[in-house]
Amino acid sequence: MAPSVESQQQQPPVEAENTVNSTRVEDEVPPIKSKVTVVGSGNWGSVAAKLIASNARRLSSFHDEVRMWVFEETLPTGEKLSEVINRTNENVKYLPGIKLGENVVADPDLENAVRDANMLVFVTPHQFMEGICRQIVGKIREDAEAISLIKGMEVKKEGPCMISTLISEQLGINCCVLMGANIANEIAVEKFSEATVGYRKHKEIAEKWVHIFNTSYFMVSAVQDVEGVELCGTLKNVVAIAAGFVDGLEMGNNTKAAIMRIGLREMKAFSKLLFPSVKDTTFFESCGVADLITTCLGGRNRKCAEAFARNGGKRSFDELEAEMLQGQKLQGVSTAKEVYEVLSHRGWLELFPLFSTVHEICIGRLPPSAIVQYSEHTPKFSLVGGSAQFL
Amino acid sequence: MAPSVESQQQQPPVEAENTVNSTRVEDEVPPIKSKVTVVGSGNWGSVAAKLIASNARRLSSFHDEVRMWVFEETLPTGEKLSEVINRTNENVKYLPGIKLGENVVADPDLENAVRDANMLVFVTPHQFMEGICRQIVGKIREDAEAISLIKGMEVKKEGPCMISTLISEQLGINCCVLMGANIANEIAVEKFSEATVGYRKHKEIAEKWVHIFNTSYFMVSAVQDVEGVELCGTLKNVVAIAAGFVDGLEMGNNTKAAIMRIGLREMKAFSKLLFPSVKDTTFFESCGVADLITTCLGGRNRKCAEAFARNGGKRSFDELEAEMLQGQKLQGVSTAKEVYEVLSHRGWLELFPLFSTVHEICIGRLPPSAIVQYSEHTPKFSLVGGSAQFL
Repeated sequence: MAPSVESQQQQPPVEAENTVNSTRVEDEVPPIKSKVTVVGSGNWGSVAAKLIASNARRLSSFHDEVRMWVFEETLPTGEKLSEVINRTNENVKYLPGIKLGENVVADPDLENAVRDANMLVFVTPHQFMEGICRQIVGKIREDAEAISLIKGMEVKKEGPCMISTLISEQLGINCCVLMGANIANEIAVEKFSEATVGYRKHKEIAEKWVHIFNTSYFMVSAVQDVEGVELCGTLKNVVAIAAGFVDGLEMGNNTKAAIMRIGLREMKAFSKLLFPSVKDTTFFESCGVADLITTCLGGRNRKCAEAFARNGGKRSFDELEAEMLQGQKLQGVSTAKEVYEVLSHRGWLELFPLFSTVHEICIGRLPPSAIVQYSEHTPKFSLVGGSAQFL
Repeated sequence: MAPSVESQQQQPPVEAENTVNSTRVEDEVPPIKSKVTVVGSGNWGSVAAKLIASNARRLSSFHDEVRMWVFEETLPTGEKLSEVINRTNENVKYLPGIKLGENVVADPDLENAVRDANMLVFVTPHQFMEGICRQIVGKIREDAEAISLIKGMEVKKEGPCMISTLISEQLGINCCVLMGANIANEIAVEKFSEATVGYRKHKEIAEKWVHIFNTSYFMVSAVQDVEGVELCGTLKNVVAIAAGFVDGLEMGNNTKAAIMRIGLREMKAFSKLLFPSVKDTTFFESCGVADLITTCLGGRNRKCAEAFARNGGKRSFDELEAEMLQGQKLQGVSTAKEVYEVLSHRGWLELFPLFSTVHEICIGRLPPSAIVQYSEHTPKFSLVGGSAQFL
């Protein structure tokens, strides 16, 4: 029998919520209940609040109340969004039709929302995070733990600017991440999904995050690899652009699968070059292969790239974005550019034919069909020993 | 910089065909040319012959002529299939419209076809292999090397019956495998694809196989893991059944991606339990994640399973196969049964919730919706540490 299963058998299973945070009667110490606040109330933030609220009600180790900071808006009816959420128990603007759970309290006052919490869940657009940190620094509990659900870190020349690092450094607290194949609206209606928590050091902290997010339809695992998990959430968008090109060129599923695989390999290689601590196994988790599949099957990066290739690259991404996304920018296109700068800066361009080709197609330097012309790019790799051995 | 790239930089690149088999002038030994025979001439066999023929013409280390054994048939025109192939250079029955290359010689005489070859490519339906081996044993060159492109080994209670092992044992020769995301008709029209060679010991042999198959649109890598590569080709069909159920239940891409990921994890775990030598990295190769994606996006296993779930399991797979596949049997359904027997026999059922659930749905013991009800099956796994750690 293989060691993997032996080790599993020898190791006592983690028995649901009872392992963590429960205190035995003879200890005579009152249980310290964790208190969770969700910072953000968009589509994904509201779903996160719903997941957390269902567990907070159920688990004795958490306070029932889950506070959700709402960036206040006035609705067309003249009412405040936070008031409507508290009255109807629905985020009528960003997640209509879904009850969040009666223990969710919308709070438009950021400082008030975070003050008593020892578990802070950050799920805002990434450009808000610096301002949020500035506003709450020094106003949170000293024992607070954070988790970031924010996808969209920037990759700068000197390396990626991780959101989890930003939170950690600005607030002086530990920060995990939660990523995965998570389409908010599908999880909101309780369709089966998975997610991955990345943690840095303390397994007990990761267990608490797993317990507060995990439900029967949202299966959460944790891996000790914050950087790997967080990078997956960003780099997959570059691969989705490549997959969209293949769709636009009508190359079929076989070619698309090959491109997705090469993309996954480059995600892994890039992450490991930047952070040698990144683990191969992370890419088998939901944040890796599953999120990649979801993003390459649906998603707007794939969709716009498909339109780009169908037009033979004659209409720019700027034009297509304006038309198809009401002015929103495609993350994959900007991430491809950022990744290209890192590769170019470090002399790694030839090691990453897919990443570099995606950018060169996006800026019109290569035609979309270049996405499947790998032979010219790869003579430096030994074909024997497996590509995974070298990248 | 990470060791992976350093090791790649330190290692001189394998320079195409010149590294292997070429002899330097000063050696004064005439180059020994390899001679390839393809045993099989169906759809995939014909494409394999085309790939090999293009390289045999190009590379000095191979004889130009590539012999292809044809299971002789009389066409409706009254002509013999082998004669038509040799006259038109097309397999008009199994790969019409594609020129195989003028150096492909169809040969209906099996013993004659294999006699002079030192490289034997087996690509027949798997049930033919025992008979073929019986017929040619003792009639092949002593230095012959084999490769199997045959998917569809059986998984018996006492373990899988690998086709490569059958060939090796019956013929007393070494046998590699070539698997991957390979839809024959797409490769025939030169759409970009990849494949994986699995080899047992000798890297030089693997290099020869890579050189004779690799083209600009068919990128081949080799890994030292015959069992892992060959098992991928079979087990993916069980996952495709699961993916088909998700499609039939209209659960969306997010759930489908999660099921594919859990399937990949179980493929890896099952292979490693049966053969501890199987490598994790094999599942990142084309034979692993890419073939899985192709099979779960298209393919008849997925399609029939989708129909099964749409009908709520009320029409049996036997019925659906008869209707949708003109009496052919679905490999995924029989492999799921075989895998279930192994799991049951060894007491591993609870370690493989997806594999076991697929079989129980196929035989009507569970409803199709059970495919996404994992929570009941998984309490024995610690959620922290990453699922990959235990499976």
